[in-house]
Amino acid sequence: MSDMLIRSLVEKRGEKIILLVLDGLGGLPDRVSGKTELEAAKSPNLDRLAAKGITGMIDPVGRGITPGSGPGHLGLFGYDPVEIDVGRGVLAALGIGFDLEETDVAVRINFATLGEDGTITDRRAGRIPTEECERLAGILGDIELPGAELFVRPVKEHRAAVIFRAEGLGDAVNDTDPQRTGAAPYDVEGRDEPSKRTAELANRFIAEARKRIGGEERANGVLLRGFARYRPLPTFEERFGLRGLAIALYPMYRGVARLVGMEVQDVRGKMSSLFEAVTAHYNDYDFFFVHVKDTDKAGEDGDYAAKQAAIEKVDRLVSRFDDVPEKVLVVTGDHSTPSQMKSHSHHPVPLLIHGRHVRPDGVRSFGESACAGGGLGRFAAKEILPTALAHAGRLRKFGA
Amino acid sequence: MSDMLIRSLVEKRGEKIILLVLDGLGGLPDRVSGKTELEAAKSPNLDRLAAKGITGMIDPVGRGITPGSGPGHLGLFGYDPVEIDVGRGVLAALGIGFDLEETDVAVRINFATLGEDGTITDRRAGRIPTEECERLAGILGDIELPGAELFVRPVKEHRAAVIFRAEGLGDAVNDTDPQRTGAAPYDVEGRDEPSKRTAELANRFIAEARKRIGGEERANGVLLRGFARYRPLPTFEERFGLRGLAIALYPMYRGVARLVGMEVQDVRGKMSSLFEAVTAHYNDYDFFFVHVKDTDKAGEDGDYAAKQAAIEKVDRLVSRFDDVPEKVLVVTGDHSTPSQMKSHSHHPVPLLIHGRHVRPDGVRSFGESACAGGGLGRFAAKEILPTALAHAGRLRKFGA
Repeated sequence: MSDMLIRSLVEKRGEKIILLVLDGLGGLPDRVSGKTELEAAKSPNLDRLAAKGITGMIDPVGRGITPGSGPGHLGLFGYDPVEIDVGRGVLAALGIGFDLEETDVAVRINFATLGEDGTITDRRAGRIPTEECERLAGILGDIELPGAELFVRPVKEHRAAVIFRAEGLGDAVNDTDPQRTGAAPYDVEGRDEPSKRTAELANRFIAEARKRIGGEERANGVLLRGFARYRPLPTFEERFGLRGLAIALYPMYRGVARLVGMEVQDVRGKMSSLFEAVTAHYNDYDFFFVHVKDTDKAGEDGDYAAKQAAIEKVDRLVSRFDDVPEKVLVVTGDHSTPSQMKSHSHHPVPLLIHGRHVRPDGVRSFGESACAGGGLGRFAAKEILPTALAHAGRLRKFGA
Repeated sequence: MSDMLIRSLVEKRGEKIILLVLDGLGGLPDRVSGKTELEAAKSPNLDRLAAKGITGMIDPVGRGITPGSGPGHLGLFGYDPVEIDVGRGVLAALGIGFDLEETDVAVRINFATLGEDGTITDRRAGRIPTEECERLAGILGDIELPGAELFVRPVKEHRAAVIFRAEGLGDAVNDTDPQRTGAAPYDVEGRDEPSKRTAELANRFIAEARKRIGGEERANGVLLRGFARYRPLPTFEERFGLRGLAIALYPMYRGVARLVGMEVQDVRGKMSSLFEAVTAHYNDYDFFFVHVKDTDKAGEDGDYAAKQAAIEKVDRLVSRFDDVPEKVLVVTGDHSTPSQMKSHSHHPVPLLIHGRHVRPDGVRSFGESACAGGGLGRFAAKEILPTALAHAGRLRKFGA
């Protein structure tokens, strides 16, 4: 649906919306039982919600596309994940929970091994352990740049992120990684004045880094990729009239929610804390994004039973929303993570919407096969939000 | 899905893909049995593939659109058949298997009857038999043009094609057919320099034609329509990273496959040769387009039983793919040709996808009614290819 149309119809009152995301929810059938993790799970509460509500299948980005967490969540938040190019550096910074400001340029670092002649001998520095990455990031974080602040943060193994903070920096600059060994890293060049300023800072950072870690056995140099200026998107509130609260244990998902202007609730500890946070702050927001990571983690680990167990745990907790008044509850995932594949996949994701004015379909349980025949059909994730708004009575009639 | 996005995610390795096209596959139910040709066919192998795979319905171009063979196949090859304007002259030349080169301008000819005053008395020359068309094409093919090669080829009845071959020809020229009798054919005019050159050649061709066939009783003049320069499309390999082999008995389908840069296997004779060609060349290509014409032909002939028999024949042959390793098999049609209508129709076409990482739906047989409830839903043919690529493990994850 046209973004402009939705925006013109939004009303700032109506019921509340809870979006419960089971990360990596979709699965593939087990060879023996023929059931996915979700279908095998004992989930009487989700089944009841599916039976009373309406169901369907969503393509997070599009048919055939396996989404990363960034695009997957942007779609769920009603943004077109293909049109919106957040930039890899920004996604990396969001992914580690770095608090980006509007002028920041974020960049991915790969620690690499350089030979004596300055050419690359290993683009991943032998995949140094994360602890070593943390130590090196600490060293590089002390570099001082003229007229700019610098932040260096470890990510994982040989991967880190650097953030340049100064007014007027551009991101029209090249990567330094030549994508092969035997070549020297490229210098950074800017294609316009603001980007030339970024290039200057980046080249100086690279030279300083070489001085400070040049004596390391493996990670004696850095490659910079994915320069991206942080540009907050049109906010969730502007677009949909919703004051949104993100409730997530992992920084990546908080980061994407912040990118669209949601507030972030600081939750820690058990899965139940996510559900408690909704009821605790129920009066202060219109929209609650609740993110459960355990399903995806189990899928990535190839652990069918753990994914099934995570779904069963959610099922027990979701009944806490039963008595929450005047709301539309949406349950889905940001992509599939079949435990048989140990990775995100392109398969569509089951979805249920429960609320007072839902027209139920004949689906009686929450599962891939059942939802494939659901009344919402198969559609793009970015259409979920308009559908939820409508069910919450938050979209005016279009035309007389 | 966005073409650019798909292109950016393509990996040049993964499983192979076999696209088996039963031309005109879709049908309408028989009045007595209530079954379409496909539903009536005894097709245990296709049913088994549908049961183990996932099914759906495709719109070759869009809801309500009856596609010709060109658009129908472009959609199956992952190209947008509406955006891509191949040009009618080019389609006509491809349809008769003419080997177009990149500078060629191809044009449709209608033989027509002109009165003594030069005005048209019959725009189709009384629909002369094809043999007469062949004789006339032979005569016109001898015309010599300064600085250009000329090819004239018969198509059917009063229809033929002319190809002008020279460097630097344009196709921004008008048709000569005024679309009514009593008027004289238009002169050809070019709207830019290259097209003025084409106009000059075309006008001279028309004048020469009039000299040579002016004495014919019926077909004593020519009308030229659909001037189109041959522009090869971004190739299948560029777009999808697939080395494709087209295996088809009829020139039209080889032509459309060549248009997107597939190689063409010279097969002749029986339907089984199509299936043998796949296994014979299995190691040399990533993608196999196998085209079966018999289903469409029977539909066009209004022969329900023959169409059913053609499907049963395919069913016996398709089991040869059972032992072909590591592949995704797609079975569908380029459009419907219900034998009751004796023509192409707008009805959507059943589709099945079988492969290792398919999430099966509840559909147990390959037929129109069954596939309408399939897990892939109803969608545009051009989305088949991304879906097949994804199942073959040939699309990287999008975003972090």
